[in-house]
Amino acid sequence: MAQQERAIRTRRAILEAAGAVFDEHGYTSTTISMVLERAEVTKGALYFHFPSKESLAQAVLNEQVPFGAVPPQPCKLQEIIDMTFVVGQRLLSNSLLRGSVRLAVDQETPSGVDHGEPFRQWAHRLTALLEQARTQGELLPTANPRETVDLLVGSFTGIQLMSRALTNRADLGHRLSVLWAHILPSIAVPGVLIALDSRADRGARVLESLEVAAS
Amino acid sequence: MAQQERAIRTRRAILEAAGAVFDEHGYTSTTISMVLERAEVTKGALYFHFPSKESLAQAVLNEQVPFGAVPPQPCKLQEIIDMTFVVGQRLLSNSLLRGSVRLAVDQETPSGVDHGEPFRQWAHRLTALLEQARTQGELLPTANPRETVDLLVGSFTGIQLMSRALTNRADLGHRLSVLWAHILPSIAVPGVLIALDSRADRGARVLESLEVAAS
Repeated sequence: MAQQERAIRTRRAILEAAGAVFDEHGYTSTTISMVLERAEVTKGALYFHFPSKESLAQAVLNEQVPFGAVPPQPCKLQEIIDMTFVVGQRLLSNSLLRGSVRLAVDQETPSGVDHGEPFRQWAHRLTALLEQARTQGELLPTANPRETVDLLVGSFTGIQLMSRALTNRADLGHRLSVLWAHILPSIAVPGVLIALDSRADRGARVLESLEVAAS
Repeated sequence: MAQQERAIRTRRAILEAAGAVFDEHGYTSTTISMVLERAEVTKGALYFHFPSKESLAQAVLNEQVPFGAVPPQPCKLQEIIDMTFVVGQRLLSNSLLRGSVRLAVDQETPSGVDHGEPFRQWAHRLTALLEQARTQGELLPTANPRETVDLLVGSFTGIQLMSRALTNRADLGHRLSVLWAHILPSIAVPGVLIALDSRADRGARVLESLEVAAS
């Protein structure tokens, strides 16, 4: 059992190191030695968990969606809003998440690595929530959850990218707030719309409440 | 004069070759020799126009906005919609545009190259049009042209990227149509809203009319 725990910790340490290196150097320029040095693990340990650079990149890509974990909300639209703000906030400080986003976005990520996977995972997770929102009567009858979700995932990707290029992501919260201000009136019923919180600092506040709950 | 014309043509040939090579290989893996071979020009001609790989990349980045050229419309919101669809349509076939977009999006583009420049150019061009739309009474009083434009540029960037990752951009027209269906009700007055055309094949139709007009 202790051995299994150690293996889980080692795997995580490798993933975090790999995320940081992929974030800084991109797929092509990253070498296994760079990851080894950063993770402070042996070559044997790394190859035990990840037989190749491709498999390491894929694992980093697959780690993206858990970073959207937020407390469940009675209003499912609020829960979706919270996920976007929390991911935005975590992008500021978490290099595994940043590396994962870079691999998904950079065209250089080779075709042997499925960089469409996080897009599909986000779409799957968010569509389930938006379908729940529909069942609960939060959505206008014209809303099409699958289309709205595809738009959200694509827009979020580009908005964080533009925010990174222009302000090193300092204005990401504000940009997400603008996104929601434009989209929500087209999908939410008025009674829900008025109660939603999509202000720029929403991510920081949700993360704060998570930390308080954990302490 | 003939000499000047030749110089303009050579410069364009180099830019188009560079765009194609940047699109296929990204910034880091692209070499000047690859561009020379593709453009079929001499080293001297290339260095006359572009003294370095950085300056070549910057010129490719700066070529992006002219690809949004569309016929002026009485309704300025329609003109903005047309620009997005025409750029989407041209991304399918134009490798200079594709290379320019890749340089703007890829994190590997070095800090000596200003890859925020096309974002700023788009924002500038579109804000002027949206301000005109406001003056003409097309916008709801709550619309904020600068914020809407930043959202459009960021969302377009991510939507084309997701479309490339999942369908090699085959569904880009549909995705743009979904974007507009979500945003327009939050910014356009109803009388304008009903007359706008943002169907998925809008880009193909606008380009067709441009070709007919030119023939």
